[in-house]
Amino acid sequence: MEFEALTSSELAAYLHRIPAVNALLGDDSELEVVEVGDGNLNYVYFVSNVQVPQQSVVVKQAPPFLRLVGEAWPLTRQRMEHEVAALRRFGALCPQHVPQVYHADSELFLVVMQRLASHRILRRGLIDGIVYPKLAGHMATYLARTLFYGSDLFLDAEAKKEAARAGINSELCKITEELVFTFPFEGHPSNVYSEALPKAAIERLRHHVPLRVAVAQMKWAFMNHAETLLHGDLHTGSIMVNQDESYVIDPEFAFYGPMGFDVGALLANFLLAFFSREWHGRVDGADPRPYQSWLLKQVVEVWNGFAAQFLGLWREHENTGGANSWHFIGDDPSHECAEAFRAAFIRRLFADTLGFTGCKMIRRIVGMAKVADITSIPDAAARAAIEVRCLQFAETLLVQREALMGIEEVVELATATQLSREVDA
Amino acid sequence: MEFEALTSSELAAYLHRIPAVNALLGDDSELEVVEVGDGNLNYVYFVSNVQVPQQSVVVKQAPPFLRLVGEAWPLTRQRMEHEVAALRRFGALCPQHVPQVYHADSELFLVVMQRLASHRILRRGLIDGIVYPKLAGHMATYLARTLFYGSDLFLDAEAKKEAARAGINSELCKITEELVFTFPFEGHPSNVYSEALPKAAIERLRHHVPLRVAVAQMKWAFMNHAETLLHGDLHTGSIMVNQDESYVIDPEFAFYGPMGFDVGALLANFLLAFFSREWHGRVDGADPRPYQSWLLKQVVEVWNGFAAQFLGLWREHENTGGANSWHFIGDDPSHECAEAFRAAFIRRLFADTLGFTGCKMIRRIVGMAKVADITSIPDAAARAAIEVRCLQFAETLLVQREALMGIEEVVELATATQLSREVDA
Repeated sequence: MEFEALTSSELAAYLHRIPAVNALLGDDSELEVVEVGDGNLNYVYFVSNVQVPQQSVVVKQAPPFLRLVGEAWPLTRQRMEHEVAALRRFGALCPQHVPQVYHADSELFLVVMQRLASHRILRRGLIDGIVYPKLAGHMATYLARTLFYGSDLFLDAEAKKEAARAGINSELCKITEELVFTFPFEGHPSNVYSEALPKAAIERLRHHVPLRVAVAQMKWAFMNHAETLLHGDLHTGSIMVNQDESYVIDPEFAFYGPMGFDVGALLANFLLAFFSREWHGRVDGADPRPYQSWLLKQVVEVWNGFAAQFLGLWREHENTGGANSWHFIGDDPSHECAEAFRAAFIRRLFADTLGFTGCKMIRRIVGMAKVADITSIPDAAARAAIEVRCLQFAETLLVQREALMGIEEVVELATATQLSREVDA
Repeated sequence: MEFEALTSSELAAYLHRIPAVNALLGDDSELEVVEVGDGNLNYVYFVSNVQVPQQSVVVKQAPPFLRLVGEAWPLTRQRMEHEVAALRRFGALCPQHVPQVYHADSELFLVVMQRLASHRILRRGLIDGIVYPKLAGHMATYLARTLFYGSDLFLDAEAKKEAARAGINSELCKITEELVFTFPFEGHPSNVYSEALPKAAIERLRHHVPLRVAVAQMKWAFMNHAETLLHGDLHTGSIMVNQDESYVIDPEFAFYGPMGFDVGALLANFLLAFFSREWHGRVDGADPRPYQSWLLKQVVEVWNGFAAQFLGLWREHENTGGANSWHFIGDDPSHECAEAFRAAFIRRLFADTLGFTGCKMIRRIVGMAKVADITSIPDAAARAAIEVRCLQFAETLLVQREALMGIEEVVELATATQLSREVDA
């Protein structure tokens, strides 16, 4: 069956037929439909009341292929079911950070949801050097709540296994398995290298043994460690922000995987913004350092805030149940064993996070799907220098992930990598 | 619906109605039905032709409760479906080590399978001090083939995820989660302590922080690391042997879990046999040491043989596919990265194995389900001394699992633990 994207009039007529959406948009009002067209996977429309533009919704529809590539890369449309289920689940856990779902259609594979009209994609804001004072706190909360409440630390063992079963998302996981963990380290035809990127840097990705081993270990964790329901693609293009609010969108990659993958995706994108700031912060003769510092502060605050809130939810869950309080570790009246386990758990999660951060940075430099932070640098030599720094830093994170002792050490390493580049130049 | 076990005549009539089974037993012949009655979970019958006793089958039926406890511990009968699926899967991978399934009935929750008439339960053979010259090699092969072929190292990613989905076995996993990883470390009413076991040893299980942390980490791995289809209960009571053959039975606990859990279960049971040999090897004035040495040799040979065969299957899979050869790590022409990843993989699997070995030993000392190696020691003081050694050794395995550098070091530790006890005595 050939797929044809909905026309504006078809979509408007469809939305009028859904009572709740029709009411939101203003009964049978004239609608403006704009295809946003920036999705890698899907069609996305802004639909608004022509007379009252603030009455608007977003419509997202999954075509039977990867939109970035076209019909040559078929994808089943059931991915929309994962997205809708994840939006609802994360929305229940974090309503303040997840757009509301108004309607989902499992025959057309589309979802109608809250329009975030006063928000923009975080990646764009970071490229423009905007400070979002509440962002790190919001993301720490989002991560702590979504990662904790899907795990065996909170859920009954059977409920967790049923959630993991429902979350199996083989097709989109395969994209990550290939594009993040495999192709960037091969001479794969889907890789895209910027013109001035040194051949030695590319060769190192393919042949440096400790790096390849670390990446394979992270791939194993990604494919085997079904810890919690992840967003699965938590980069700064999946976050919409303004000065007061932060929303996480686009969870079609949601599946039961390792907690560090979501945290690492976010940190990777802050770090890509940090390294590329060397260019974006200078173009008008400005000093890039204040915003670079702010970006590194976000890395520290997201991790520390996440870890503190995650531990807080965990302790609360163990302590407030009274006679029914439930401890993953088992009964432990002094809490001494439980606290030591928590510390070890967070230490291991930190190492996982750094490993995934490294993988996510590398794929954005040499893989098929790039980030505008890097690709918008028009000077080939400046871009390549930044790319090399990103690769060096990512490699260290991967290889040293068990040895790096805290997030402060990570940002010191980022600063040192940045400075060594400046000395070279 | 009340469950009533089949009477002998009902079972005989039932078997006569299954053409394949009826033919095996001799058409409409007179049958002898013996309920074996040693299962913790199920009813097990030996059925044989009265005139030609070598024409016989085993029938296993799952009642809607845990047989060890009775109707007070209800269990759904669907566990039989997991057992049958696992018998068929493992049988396809290792026909020489898995009993053949002749018939499975998903309404009566019973399976009719190959009678191993000349084999006995391995645990009984070990208590009697029998040497099985082919055992370690057989178990190494069984472990390597079953653990490798269910994993992402062999299966296509989607097939693996579908297998993991089909393998979800919440109810029986919950038994392990509680009885192996939780209750033994609490003051849980299901625990059973032998009369002379020192209170300090029990207290240590509850309060020694590094031990509790290590056990919680192994529980996390058990519940989250869906690496391959495991047997799930691979103790020496699940193995039937004679001088030439070894069969693995009773995989109703099968699920997608961490590879080290099956390997660790087997090593734990050899080590329980080793420590309890101190008693069984002396009762008639004999020297326990030769058989103790043989038992430790099994530990070394199972691990080393397993690791070598597992790596062999992995290399073969990567190298024989020609243009289609598939590498988990990705393309790696020199194999240098792949070999380094294999070494790291086995190192990590070894640490996992030791952790699970420790957990499985401890639960057999203080948990509800015991092993005859220990419980058949009538001298309370001698039994307690052996139990203390088992607990000390298990604790070291758990806490030092990342630091122990090879299986030889593990058996040296076992020997040292054994000798220190003799000096104490």
